[in-house]
Amino acid sequence: MTPDYSPVHPAGATQEQGTLHKPGHDPDCLFCKIVAKQIPSRVVYEDEELFAFHDIHPWAPVHFLLIPKMHIPSLAQVDHETAGLMGRMMALVPKLALQEGCNPYPQGGYRLVTNTGVEGGQEVRHLHFHVMGGTRPWLRG
Amino acid sequence: MTPDYSPVHPAGATQEQGTLHKPGHDPDCLFCKIVAKQIPSRVVYEDEELFAFHDIHPWAPVHFLLIPKMHIPSLAQVDHETAGLMGRMMALVPKLALQEGCNPYPQGGYRLVTNTGVEGGQEVRHLHFHVMGGTRPWLRG
Repeated sequence: MTPDYSPVHPAGATQEQGTLHKPGHDPDCLFCKIVAKQIPSRVVYEDEELFAFHDIHPWAPVHFLLIPKMHIPSLAQVDHETAGLMGRMMALVPKLALQEGCNPYPQGGYRLVTNTGVEGGQEVRHLHFHVMGGTRPWLRG
Repeated sequence: MTPDYSPVHPAGATQEQGTLHKPGHDPDCLFCKIVAKQIPSRVVYEDEELFAFHDIHPWAPVHFLLIPKMHIPSLAQVDHETAGLMGRMMALVPKLALQEGCNPYPQGGYRLVTNTGVEGGQEVRHLHFHVMGGTRPWLRG
Protein backbone atom coordinates (compact mmCIF):
# COMPACT_ATOMS: atom_id res chain seq x y z
CA MET A 1 0.00 0.00 0.00
CA THR A 2 1.01 3.63 -0.33
CA PRO A 3 2.61 5.06 2.79
CA ASP A 4 -0.43 6.99 3.97
CA TYR A 5 0.25 7.44 7.67
CA SER A 6 -2.91 8.13 9.52
CA PRO A 7 -2.95 9.12 13.18
CA VAL A 8 -3.48 6.39 15.72
CA HIS A 9 -6.76 6.40 17.58
CA PRO A 10 -7.99 3.65 19.85
CA ALA A 11 -10.88 1.59 18.53
CA GLY A 12 -14.11 3.36 19.34
CA ALA A 13 -12.57 6.81 19.29
CA THR A 14 -14.72 9.59 17.93
CA GLN A 15 -13.75 13.04 16.81
CA GLU A 16 -15.56 16.34 17.09
CA GLN A 17 -15.02 17.22 13.44
CA GLY A 18 -16.26 15.07 10.57
CA THR A 19 -19.59 13.44 9.97
CA LEU A 20 -18.84 9.86 11.05
CA HIS A 21 -18.96 9.03 14.73
CA LYS A 22 -19.52 5.28 14.60
CA PRO A 23 -17.71 3.37 17.35
CA GLY A 24 -14.70 1.61 15.90
CA HIS A 25 -14.48 4.01 12.98
CA ASP A 26 -11.63 6.51 12.65
CA PRO A 27 -12.68 9.26 10.22
CA ASP A 28 -9.03 10.08 9.47
CA CYS A 29 -8.06 6.48 8.61
CA LEU A 30 -7.56 5.52 4.94
CA PHE A 31 -8.86 1.98 5.47
CA CYS A 32 -11.88 3.12 7.47
CA LYS A 33 -12.69 5.34 4.49
CA ILE A 34 -12.34 2.34 2.15
CA VAL A 35 -14.64 0.27 4.38
CA ALA A 36 -17.16 3.15 4.36
CA LYS A 37 -16.84 3.31 0.51
CA GLN A 38 -15.77 6.95 0.78
CA ILE A 39 -12.67 5.82 -1.13
CA PRO A 40 -13.22 3.23 -3.89
CA SER A 41 -11.49 -0.16 -3.87
CA ARG A 42 -11.67 -3.41 -5.81
CA VAL A 43 -13.59 -5.46 -3.26
CA VAL A 44 -12.65 -9.12 -2.73
CA TYR A 45 -14.95 -9.90 0.20
CA GLU A 46 -17.25 -8.19 2.67
CA ASP A 47 -19.31 -9.28 5.65
CA GLU A 48 -20.51 -7.63 8.85
CA GLU A 49 -17.08 -7.61 10.45
CA LEU A 50 -14.50 -8.08 7.71
CA PHE A 51 -13.49 -6.47 4.44
CA ALA A 52 -10.97 -7.49 1.77
CA PHE A 53 -9.77 -5.57 -1.26
CA HIS A 54 -7.01 -5.67 -3.85
CA ASP A 55 -3.75 -3.90 -3.02
CA ILE A 56 -3.21 -0.96 -5.38
CA HIS A 57 0.52 -1.80 -5.66
CA PRO A 58 0.56 -5.61 -5.92
CA TRP A 59 3.80 -7.49 -5.23
CA ALA A 60 2.50 -10.76 -6.61
CA PRO A 61 -0.06 -11.96 -9.22
CA VAL A 62 -2.57 -12.15 -6.35
CA HIS A 63 -2.28 -9.50 -3.64
CA PHE A 64 -5.18 -8.43 -1.50
CA LEU A 65 -5.63 -7.05 2.00
CA LEU A 66 -7.94 -8.52 4.62
CA ILE A 67 -8.97 -6.11 7.38
CA PRO A 68 -11.42 -5.86 10.25
CA LYS A 69 -14.05 -3.19 9.61
CA MET A 70 -13.51 -2.00 13.17
CA HIS A 71 -10.57 0.37 13.51
CA ILE A 72 -7.90 -1.68 15.25
CA PRO A 73 -4.62 0.18 14.64
CA SER A 74 -2.40 -2.91 14.51
CA LEU A 75 -1.77 -6.39 15.86
CA ALA A 76 -0.29 -4.69 18.95
CA GLN A 77 -3.86 -3.84 20.08
CA VAL A 78 -5.20 -7.39 19.62
CA ASP A 79 -6.09 -9.19 22.86
CA HIS A 80 -8.56 -11.81 24.07
CA GLU A 81 -11.49 -9.55 23.17
CA THR A 82 -10.57 -9.45 19.48
CA ALA A 83 -8.97 -12.93 19.28
CA GLY A 84 -12.18 -14.48 17.94
CA LEU A 85 -12.28 -11.98 15.10
CA MET A 86 -8.65 -12.74 14.28
CA GLY A 87 -9.47 -16.45 14.15
CA ARG A 88 -12.29 -15.79 11.70
CA MET A 89 -9.84 -13.88 9.53
CA MET A 90 -7.33 -16.74 9.56
CA ALA A 91 -9.98 -19.27 8.53
CA LEU A 92 -11.13 -16.96 5.73
CA VAL A 93 -7.69 -16.50 4.16
CA PRO A 94 -7.49 -19.93 2.46
CA LYS A 95 -10.96 -19.51 0.93
CA LEU A 96 -10.29 -16.01 -0.40
CA ALA A 97 -6.82 -16.97 -1.65
CA LEU A 98 -8.26 -19.73 -3.83
CA GLN A 99 -11.17 -17.54 -4.91
CA GLU A 100 -8.71 -14.87 -6.07
CA GLY A 101 -6.62 -17.29 -8.12
CA CYS A 102 -3.87 -18.60 -5.86
CA ASN A 103 -2.88 -22.13 -6.86
CA PRO A 104 -3.88 -24.91 -4.44
CA TYR A 105 -1.72 -26.25 -1.63
CA PRO A 106 0.79 -27.89 -1.55
CA GLN A 107 2.39 -26.86 -4.89
CA GLY A 108 0.63 -23.50 -5.00
CA GLY A 109 0.04 -21.39 -1.94
CA TYR A 110 0.30 -17.87 -0.59
CA ARG A 111 2.09 -15.71 1.92
CA LEU A 112 0.31 -13.93 4.77
CA VAL A 113 2.02 -10.87 6.26
CA THR A 114 1.03 -8.27 8.80
CA ASN A 115 3.35 -5.44 9.73
CA THR A 116 3.10 -3.79 13.13
CA GLY A 117 4.64 -0.41 13.97
CA VAL A 118 7.44 1.49 12.27
CA GLU A 119 10.13 -1.15 12.80
CA GLY A 120 7.66 -3.76 11.58
CA GLY A 121 7.19 -1.82 8.34
CA GLN A 122 3.56 -0.81 8.93
CA GLU A 123 2.40 1.90 6.53
CA VAL A 124 -1.31 2.27 7.27
CA ARG A 125 -2.33 2.24 10.91
CA HIS A 126 -5.37 0.02 10.52
CA LEU A 127 -4.66 -3.69 11.06
CA HIS A 128 -4.34 -5.44 7.70
CA PHE A 129 -3.16 -8.83 6.53
CA HIS A 130 -1.49 -8.97 3.13
CA VAL A 131 -2.32 -12.14 1.22
CA MET A 132 0.07 -12.69 -1.70
CA GLY A 133 0.16 -15.60 -4.09
CA GLY A 134 0.22 -16.86 -7.63
CA THR A 135 2.94 -18.26 -9.85
CA ARG A 136 6.48 -17.14 -9.03
CA PRO A 137 8.49 -14.94 -9.46
CA TRP A 138 6.88 -12.13 -7.49
CA LEU A 139 7.95 -8.51 -7.46
CA ARG A 140 8.54 -8.68 -3.70
CA GLY A 141 7.63 -10.91 -0.81
CA MET B 1 14.16 -22.28 9.01
CA THR B 2 16.20 -24.85 7.20
CA PRO B 3 14.45 -26.35 4.20
CA ASP B 4 13.54 -29.62 5.86
CA TYR B 5 10.61 -30.83 3.82
CA SER B 6 8.57 -33.33 5.72
CA PRO B 7 5.72 -35.26 4.14
CA VAL B 8 2.24 -33.95 4.56
CA HIS B 9 -0.10 -35.92 6.78
CA PRO B 10 -3.51 -34.76 7.89
CA ALA B 11 -3.85 -33.77 11.54
CA GLY B 12 -4.48 -36.87 13.59
CA ALA B 13 -2.66 -39.17 11.21
CA THR B 14 -0.75 -42.02 12.72
CA GLN B 15 1.86 -44.23 11.20
CA GLU B 16 2.65 -47.89 11.66
CA GLN B 17 6.33 -47.26 12.30
CA GLY B 18 7.58 -45.04 15.11
CA THR B 19 6.69 -44.89 18.75
CA LEU B 20 4.41 -41.85 18.82
CA HIS B 21 0.79 -42.27 17.84
CA LYS B 22 -0.79 -39.26 19.53
CA PRO B 23 -3.60 -37.68 17.52
CA GLY B 24 -2.39 -34.47 15.93
CA HIS B 25 1.24 -35.57 16.05
CA ASP B 26 3.19 -36.44 12.90
CA PRO B 27 6.25 -38.52 13.85
CA ASP B 28 8.04 -37.47 10.66
CA CYS B 29 7.52 -33.73 11.21
CA LEU B 30 10.47 -31.58 12.36
CA PHE B 31 8.27 -29.24 14.38
CA CYS B 32 6.31 -32.08 15.99
CA LYS B 33 9.70 -33.42 17.12
CA ILE B 34 10.59 -30.00 18.53
CA VAL B 35 7.25 -29.85 20.40
CA ALA B 36 7.92 -33.35 21.77
CA LYS B 37 11.45 -32.21 22.83
CA GLN B 38 12.95 -34.95 20.67
CA ILE B 39 14.86 -32.12 18.96
CA PRO B 40 16.09 -29.30 21.20
CA SER B 41 15.06 -25.68 20.69
CA ARG B 42 15.37 -22.37 22.51
CA VAL B 43 11.87 -22.18 23.93
CA VAL B 44 10.08 -18.82 24.00
CA TYR B 45 6.67 -19.99 25.22
CA GLU B 46 4.70 -23.14 25.85
CA ASP B 47 1.15 -23.98 26.94
CA GLU B 48 -1.26 -26.85 26.34
CA GLU B 49 -1.91 -25.92 22.73
CA LEU B 50 0.88 -23.62 21.59
CA PHE B 51 4.66 -23.61 21.38
CA ALA B 52 7.14 -20.86 20.43
CA PHE B 53 10.88 -21.13 19.87
CA HIS B 54 13.72 -19.11 18.37
CA ASP B 55 14.42 -19.52 14.66
CA ILE B 56 17.85 -21.10 14.14
CA HIS B 57 18.55 -18.76 11.19
CA PRO B 58 17.22 -15.39 12.40
CA TRP B 59 16.52 -12.65 9.86
CA ALA B 60 16.12 -9.94 12.50
CA PRO B 61 17.36 -9.20 16.05
CA VAL B 62 14.20 -10.94 17.31
CA HIS B 63 12.97 -13.91 15.29
CA PHE B 64 10.90 -16.69 16.75
CA LEU B 65 8.28 -19.10 15.48
CA LEU B 66 4.85 -19.59 17.04
CA ILE B 67 3.18 -22.92 16.22
CA PRO B 68 0.22 -25.03 17.29
CA LYS B 69 1.32 -28.20 19.05
CA MET B 70 -1.21 -30.07 16.94
CA HIS B 71 0.11 -31.01 13.50
CA ILE B 72 -1.69 -28.65 11.14
CA PRO B 73 0.32 -28.71 7.89
CA SER B 74 -0.36 -25.09 6.92
CA LEU B 75 -2.87 -22.26 6.93
CA ALA B 76 -4.58 -24.05 4.00
CA GLN B 77 -5.98 -26.58 6.50
CA VAL B 78 -7.35 -23.95 8.91
CA ASP B 79 -11.13 -23.75 9.08
CA HIS B 80 -13.84 -22.89 11.61
CA GLU B 81 -12.74 -25.77 13.85
CA THR B 82 -9.24 -24.36 14.33
CA ALA B 83 -10.16 -20.67 14.04
CA GLY B 84 -10.30 -20.25 17.82
CA LEU B 85 -6.78 -21.59 18.17
CA MET B 86 -5.58 -19.18 15.48
CA GLY B 87 -7.20 -16.30 17.35
CA ARG B 88 -5.37 -17.29 20.53
CA MET B 89 -2.12 -17.26 18.57
CA MET B 90 -2.78 -13.77 17.19
CA ALA B 91 -3.50 -12.40 20.68
CA LEU B 92 -0.31 -14.01 21.99
CA VAL B 93 2.01 -12.49 19.37
CA PRO B 94 2.13 -8.94 20.84
CA LYS B 95 2.90 -10.30 24.32
CA LEU B 96 5.67 -12.61 23.16
CA ALA B 97 7.14 -9.99 20.83
CA LEU B 98 7.61 -7.54 23.72
CA GLN B 99 8.83 -10.32 26.01
CA GLU B 100 11.50 -11.23 23.45
CA GLY B 101 12.77 -7.67 23.06
CA CYS B 102 10.82 -6.08 20.21
CA ASN B 103 10.45 -2.35 20.76
CA PRO B 104 6.94 -1.11 21.61
CA TYR B 105 4.38 0.10 19.10
CA PRO B 106 4.18 2.53 17.36
CA GLN B 107 7.88 3.30 16.83
CA GLY B 108 9.01 -0.29 17.40
CA GLY B 109 7.05 -3.26 16.20
CA TYR B 110 7.36 -6.57 14.41
CA ARG B 111 6.43 -8.44 11.28
CA LEU B 112 4.26 -11.55 11.31
CA VAL B 113 4.58 -13.94 8.34
CA THR B 114 3.21 -17.35 7.54
CA ASN B 115 4.05 -19.10 4.29
CA THR B 116 1.68 -21.65 2.80
CA GLY B 117 2.66 -24.15 0.12
CA VAL B 118 5.56 -24.11 -2.32
CA GLU B 119 4.58 -20.89 -4.08
CA GLY B 120 4.04 -19.30 -0.67
CA GLY B 121 7.62 -20.19 0.31
CA GLN B 122 6.72 -22.74 3.01
CA GLU B 123 9.73 -24.82 4.08
CA VAL B 124 8.42 -26.90 6.99
CA ARG B 125 4.98 -28.40 6.59
CA HIS B 126 3.73 -27.64 10.08
CA LEU B 127 1.87 -24.33 10.38
CA HIS B 128 4.20 -21.68 11.83
CA PHE B 129 4.07 -17.93 12.20
CA HIS B 130 7.38 -16.09 11.98
CA VAL B 131 7.58 -13.13 14.36
CA MET B 132 10.44 -10.78 13.46
CA GLY B 133 11.37 -7.54 15.12
CA GLY B 134 14.00 -5.36 16.71
CA THR B 135 15.96 -2.37 15.53
CA ARG B 136 16.47 -2.08 11.75
CA PRO B 137 18.19 -3.00 9.47
CA TRP B 138 17.26 -6.68 9.35
CA LEU B 139 18.96 -9.36 7.30
CA ARG B 140 15.69 -10.09 5.49
CA GLY B 141 12.01 -9.38 5.88
